[in-house]
Amino acid sequence: MFKKILIANRGEIAVRIIRACREMGIKTVAVYSQADQDALHMQLADEAICIGPAKATDSYLNMQSILSAAVVTKAQAIHPGFGFLSENATFATMCEELNITFIGPSPKTIDQMGNKAHARELMIEAGVPVIPGSESYITDTQEAKTVADQLGYPVMLKAAAGGGGKGMRKVFHADELAAAFNSAKNEAKAAFGNDEMYLEKIIEHARHIEVQILGDSYGNVIHLGERDCSLQRNNQKVLEESPSVAIDEETRKKLGATAVRAAKYVQYQNAGTIEFLLDPEGHFYFMEMNTRIQVEHPVTEMATEIDIVKEQLLIANNEMMTLRQKDVQLTGHTIECRINAENPAFHFAPSPGKIDYLLMPSGGLGLRVDSAMFAGSEIPPYYDAMIAKVITKGADRQEAIAKMKRALGELVIEGIITNQAFQEDLLNDECFIKGEYDTSFLQDTFLKEWTARIE
Amino acid sequence: MFKKILIANRGEIAVRIIRACREMGIKTVAVYSQADQDALHMQLADEAICIGPAKATDSYLNMQSILSAAVVTKAQAIHPGFGFLSENATFATMCEELNITFIGPSPKTIDQMGNKAHARELMIEAGVPVIPGSESYITDTQEAKTVADQLGYPVMLKAAAGGGGKGMRKVFHADELAAAFNSAKNEAKAAFGNDEMYLEKIIEHARHIEVQILGDSYGNVIHLGERDCSLQRNNQKVLEESPSVAIDEETRKKLGATAVRAAKYVQYQNAGTIEFLLDPEGHFYFMEMNTRIQVEHPVTEMATEIDIVKEQLLIANNEMMTLRQKDVQLTGHTIECRINAENPAFHFAPSPGKIDYLLMPSGGLGLRVDSAMFAGSEIPPYYDAMIAKVITKGADRQEAIAKMKRALGELVIEGIITNQAFQEDLLNDECFIKGEYDTSFLQDTFLKEWTARIE
Repeated sequence: MFKKILIANRGEIAVRIIRACREMGIKTVAVYSQADQDALHMQLADEAICIGPAKATDSYLNMQSILSAAVVTKAQAIHPGFGFLSENATFATMCEELNITFIGPSPKTIDQMGNKAHARELMIEAGVPVIPGSESYITDTQEAKTVADQLGYPVMLKAAAGGGGKGMRKVFHADELAAAFNSAKNEAKAAFGNDEMYLEKIIEHARHIEVQILGDSYGNVIHLGERDCSLQRNNQKVLEESPSVAIDEETRKKLGATAVRAAKYVQYQNAGTIEFLLDPEGHFYFMEMNTRIQVEHPVTEMATEIDIVKEQLLIANNEMMTLRQKDVQLTGHTIECRINAENPAFHFAPSPGKIDYLLMPSGGLGLRVDSAMFAGSEIPPYYDAMIAKVITKGADRQEAIAKMKRALGELVIEGIITNQAFQEDLLNDECFIKGEYDTSFLQDTFLKEWTARIE
Repeated sequence: MFKKILIANRGEIAVRIIRACREMGIKTVAVYSQADQDALHMQLADEAICIGPAKATDSYLNMQSILSAAVVTKAQAIHPGFGFLSENATFATMCEELNITFIGPSPKTIDQMGNKAHARELMIEAGVPVIPGSESYITDTQEAKTVADQLGYPVMLKAAAGGGGKGMRKVFHADELAAAFNSAKNEAKAAFGNDEMYLEKIIEHARHIEVQILGDSYGNVIHLGERDCSLQRNNQKVLEESPSVAIDEETRKKLGATAVRAAKYVQYQNAGTIEFLLDPEGHFYFMEMNTRIQVEHPVTEMATEIDIVKEQLLIANNEMMTLRQKDVQLTGHTIECRINAENPAFHFAPSPGKIDYLLMPSGGLGLRVDSAMFAGSEIPPYYDAMIAKVITKGADRQEAIAKMKRALGELVIEGIITNQAFQEDLLNDECFIKGEYDTSFLQDTFLKEWTARIE
């Protein structure tokens, strides 16, 4: 097994990976920016190396700096976490060239799936249902209009290099298309350095259902069931759960088998997630694949009792998976709420700053909190606003919700504004309680009512 | 279901019960002494009533005061937790008389099992193997000597009303017997107001294995597997685990069946624990029954995913258990470490005071921390010294230990002295790692070496 790995990330995912390594007897190297000098990930790791100024492009996206840190500390592998360099094929290639294992799929797979338009083509080849849309890239507004007219509105413009909701635009009418196309293209250029665009029909009243998969270097691929991540704001997930209340056993099996087929087709290695849209009739369509660990991976871990980060490390070390599909049992119901430093009453504006007092919920059965925060720690303004992921598991959905309400009721964060109360209100929403929501529910229904109520 | 219950306890178990109630939609009433005015249990409960001065006899043992609080707040039931009034049949009777449900077994059962000598007689009737010993109470030193001579030394003197290690003495030679008898008798008188004594042969190199049981008011009794609690200091448990590495599947089945037979014989209702001694040949002997929830119940909860406190509440509400024995599946391996405010380097002297800074371990899969502490909270000198119970679950024992080492490595408690480093040293002990320990190991072997090492 690796003796030492470097974690090319920060915040709770860096801490999560350090914890897994510690439990496996692997030494860890943290990298940190000047804004993270007191961050928990650098305190918990065995070694910590400053890789540059606060700005992510100068530190957590600075490949040279990170690779130098790995070479200097003799780290045998790099775990990229999520975001930052996690889906950067160039970085994965550079690791390879330095004989450092990149803990994730091959650069080729990252490239194939990272380009969403290309991934779509591959999935069609693999026989995986995809959302009706453009056959390949769309180069100008005229072409976009032609394809959109054929598909019928509303349509979704998507950046081929996209992820995390960036470079995406919903278009309801032909006369909005040109402006949306240009603004999404510019956003994509700025965010990914790639402005290739494609276009898909919008599946109305769809749910976002994703399937966690694991593949090893011997061609074994299994899935760990689904997560329902339909509750989103600006294409950012807010609350995730597993299993999805929207699918029956038959669809569940089909989804799992389809995800495995998709992953096998691209000879997928390591942990990955295949995102599907599910229409109200129960048909599902491939949306994209994330070739990395997800923020919401603990939902699946609680549901299956499988440690996905440890599996990643074993797979990256070329070990054969001992898990077989039949060993994967989902029990109970699991929910994750993301607690962010943001102000829901003011357009979710980020609310960085110092946490003066912190009391995390704990205790009892089926509660997990993943966080890199502590009393006195700072949320810097440079990165994401994640404070904690609170995850609860109950015998059924009702119990998982009750536990989450109990947990959030105990959470005390002083010094900054958070979305804690917003999440609590969502947990008390009648549609949420009934499980009746789609990907537009949070933004178009709940948030509007919520905003009206608090004004 | 109950609409409101009162929790006649403090500290982490009070918090644990409040959390379960909150998840079940039951309102809670906390009681607190003047020393606990800022305690977490009183902050988390829906209502909180001060029941007297710091001294336990004036507050947490003050039945009138607690019952008045229940009447005033219209609590329909009282959960006694452990310690304090949890095994007090008079208190349970007084609850009954006020038409308040005592969440525990009937006063008759508490009485029967609370008197350890009587319990022994009942178990013999039930066909449960007991430790060879005196047939009934021993009234004077002369009788004690006669019985001890018959059994052969070493013997254990035990207070009939005993519990928590009080009123117990190991006697190795006949000439120590009289002094031990008198001192144990006096200790029992002071601790329990009852100085009836009995005597048992000491099973050498035994392990303390206890079985968690649940019984409802319809005669259904199930067991939730065993906990190995052999690691003790002064008969106080230090670290518990499940399953025990010392028993095979056959013994496990026999133990479970014996525990169920014992509980059925006394028509046991609610949660209880049957403690056995296991000799090196695999024979087990009934030691005593605890007619209440145990400190170490989370070990079983993590192993089975069954919430014992919730089951207690359902059973007390006269609901029929839906759990059947076949539904109880123990998975993986679970360990609990008790973190106490005490100084292992100075005879484990209590170390009360203010916790200036606190960072609890968290995150990842299979970690639970039950605690009533927060940054700034006080450990009063009047009660037990519990800071937290850290519980980890792994796929196997090795992983559970690795997780516990990771967790304790993260734990930061400033302002008071704790046994954290002692527990970490225990986790690194070769005998512990091999699972080779009996009830005398910690005190007679590990502690001696440890003390010599730190001096």
